[in-house]
Amino acid sequence: MSYFDAASAAPLHPVARQALLASLDEGWADPARLYREGRRARMLLDAAREAAAEAVGCRADELVFTSSGTRAVHAGIAGALAGRHRIGRHLIVSAIEHSSVLHAADAHEAGGGSVTQIEVDRQGRVTPAAYAAALRPDTALACLQSANHEVGTVQPVAEVATVCREAGVPLFVDAAQSLGWGSVEGDWSVLAASAHKWGGPSGVGLLVVRKGVRFAAQGPADERESGRAAGFENLPAIVAAAASLRAVRAEAEQEAVRLRELTERIRVRVARSVPDVEVVGDPERRLPGIVTFSCLYVDGETLLHELDREGFSVSSGSSCTSSTLTPSHVLKAMGVLSEGNVRVSLPTGTAEEDVERFLAVLPGAVAGVREKLGAPVPAASVQQDVLVVDALGKRCPIPVIELAKVIGDVPVGGTVRVLSDDEAARLDIPAWCEMRGQEYVGEEPADRGSAYTVRRVS
Amino acid sequence: MSYFDAASAAPLHPVARQALLASLDEGWADPARLYREGRRARMLLDAAREAAAEAVGCRADELVFTSSGTRAVHAGIAGALAGRHRIGRHLIVSAIEHSSVLHAADAHEAGGGSVTQIEVDRQGRVTPAAYAAALRPDTALACLQSANHEVGTVQPVAEVATVCREAGVPLFVDAAQSLGWGSVEGDWSVLAASAHKWGGPSGVGLLVVRKGVRFAAQGPADERESGRAAGFENLPAIVAAAASLRAVRAEAEQEAVRLRELTERIRVRVARSVPDVEVVGDPERRLPGIVTFSCLYVDGETLLHELDREGFSVSSGSSCTSSTLTPSHVLKAMGVLSEGNVRVSLPTGTAEEDVERFLAVLPGAVAGVREKLGAPVPAASVQQDVLVVDALGKRCPIPVIELAKVIGDVPVGGTVRVLSDDEAARLDIPAWCEMRGQEYVGEEPADRGSAYTVRRVS
Repeated sequence: MSYFDAASAAPLHPVARQALLASLDEGWADPARLYREGRRARMLLDAAREAAAEAVGCRADELVFTSSGTRAVHAGIAGALAGRHRIGRHLIVSAIEHSSVLHAADAHEAGGGSVTQIEVDRQGRVTPAAYAAALRPDTALACLQSANHEVGTVQPVAEVATVCREAGVPLFVDAAQSLGWGSVEGDWSVLAASAHKWGGPSGVGLLVVRKGVRFAAQGPADERESGRAAGFENLPAIVAAAASLRAVRAEAEQEAVRLRELTERIRVRVARSVPDVEVVGDPERRLPGIVTFSCLYVDGETLLHELDREGFSVSSGSSCTSSTLTPSHVLKAMGVLSEGNVRVSLPTGTAEEDVERFLAVLPGAVAGVREKLGAPVPAASVQQDVLVVDALGKRCPIPVIELAKVIGDVPVGGTVRVLSDDEAARLDIPAWCEMRGQEYVGEEPADRGSAYTVRRVS
Repeated sequence: MSYFDAASAAPLHPVARQALLASLDEGWADPARLYREGRRARMLLDAAREAAAEAVGCRADELVFTSSGTRAVHAGIAGALAGRHRIGRHLIVSAIEHSSVLHAADAHEAGGGSVTQIEVDRQGRVTPAAYAAALRPDTALACLQSANHEVGTVQPVAEVATVCREAGVPLFVDAAQSLGWGSVEGDWSVLAASAHKWGGPSGVGLLVVRKGVRFAAQGPADERESGRAAGFENLPAIVAAAASLRAVRAEAEQEAVRLRELTERIRVRVARSVPDVEVVGDPERRLPGIVTFSCLYVDGETLLHELDREGFSVSSGSSCTSSTLTPSHVLKAMGVLSEGNVRVSLPTGTAEEDVERFLAVLPGAVAGVREKLGAPVPAASVQQDVLVVDALGKRCPIPVIELAKVIGDVPVGGTVRVLSDDEAARLDIPAWCEMRGQEYVGEEPADRGSAYTVRRVS
């Protein structure tokens, strides 16, 4: 098996495993107690905090351990917002934050706050200027991820932090995807991260609040972790998290070069060997281990199953792979194709042979899925000026396949109206037009779902 | 070393350790993913949920795993309150709940809700009648622990659940201290527990919400664990928690008899071998492994250090051992002595010899602390009718020691006024009077602190 989904959860690093085992025997007692076992637990906790703070580049008393990255995000955003509620209740987030950030923003909005979403370009990048334009006198907090979890695009955090700092607004950084590779540059105020993304155990997040940042922890009071993370400290996991962060950092520079070469190979070779594919995300400013592409006329779930059968574990932002049947909000915000989407995220230590085998298997897997779905082959016949395709009740990628099948049936200048009630079509039909050089005219409400009009240009 | 603080955190059970190790290799992937590693993680998670549900006595789909017992308590109370906010915002808690419950109640009150505390008797027990009297038309939720964490008293949960059920009010049960010994009887609605109390790893709590109970999870949305526990599942720890719960349950009946005999031995022998001691908590309806006593004229922190030097790890509810310098709210609610307080909570498997050694060491340790503090020895001299003792600025147990030193200096019928600004004196002076058969007249505000008046009766 080749596990290529490190951005979801990385396999446990050997150092994490070792540290976890050692501290199971030494670190189970309550670090708040005065007796021997408690004092030993306290020493382990203090040492882990020092090590993690050094890796983050902060003071030890600015860092607390939470029970997950999600908890760190929720607690960090809620605390920073509450700390500045007198200034206002306006929150800025980028459109491609992790769902934990967007859910925290939704909760803030439901509670009466206001939220501005910063749009991204087709590579998935925000601009500092967009943040500057969104800042208001009542802005309590701005949020920006250090790098995107689905497409790997690295964000201009330091520049956005400067813009925020000038306006006196703290910047919250979700560093979950990048902290294993290096500390986050710039003058940020609050930072969250998750140990199981860098090869630490699950059950540990980091929340860092810089000195001087107004912060009011929310929820019932609790004495542990400076009152910022309620509940008994998960000490063995905390020790393992800190030890593995130090270990992956020691290997980071060299491994980054190696993985970047492997993902670059995938970027280039997939575009060459798979027809009708769109490789997405910033080709330069990106994480070393993530590469994402979308295949026209392909059902993401079926492709994942095919790859799984071949021994590859990858993930997808296609609508058919989500429980809500909506495509990834990241791909949507970037305006790129979401159908047949595949994210490859290589864990550290991935062997070159495994990547080569993936590249050998992929074209056949994609072709197989397309064949099953009856994807279009060039054809020509009687031509009508306006052609209506009824794809109601059909899910991604069928509406686009139906469109592609008939576009040749209208003359250049003629239009095809696709009726669809699939949420993914809203994203994928315009994306198909862009890839195919056809004109996307627009969308209108229909009796059921929407009607998407496409004009044949060539 | 003899670790006698299982009620804080139990050492890892061998089965927990074994299960944790096994699932570190099998259970690190995201159980929401469709590929092989994800499916394997999902199977482990489902099996752990089935096993935990069986031990609790609930359906698997009623149980979610949280990141700690505290999180289970916070999420359970907040969700149950929100689920019934249309009925009202009145919350009932017992006065001796775990601090996580009381902190949740404080947060509810700070948010505009109202809270009624149910008093306990001198054994630390509530009555169903007190709950019945507290129920109101606007009561959203009532809370009662299954057994007390400081004194071991078992509560009449089933009877209180019946009273609540008749009024249509759900009962939340904090079962942290008892779940390892058996399932909680009665028709409760919501239940919370913590794995590291039964020998499971830290980082895992259980939250059970019975079908039909109105529940609205609070905080930002999250798809995991039925939306009731945000964050990536800590799967290896969850597997270890479920496996160890099953293991301790298999040993519970036999071990309960053994530990009950050992704690009974401590109850009897401490009362006999240590002068001026009060053994607290219900002598019959109690947890097998917990015994708690308070020693007059003893500073709890110093006694803990002495016992630690002798190789015993115990905890204390004395004010001097808390970061806030206030005595345990449990001892306070029971109206028992808090000075020189020691809680012995035996982990499963505690050897009889260790308990015997503790009983051999304790009287000398207590006597040593008393000698250092200059505790009273019988004396008689000039007698005044009213005597004022200035104990301002002096901390527990000094005010009581000063009182005891001079009570013999006033004639029978005369009074002693103790001036004290120590919070613990409010509890300990009346408790001393009760133990000594002297009359506690009352408390008045003084220039600094309070004046406590005691009349000599004998």
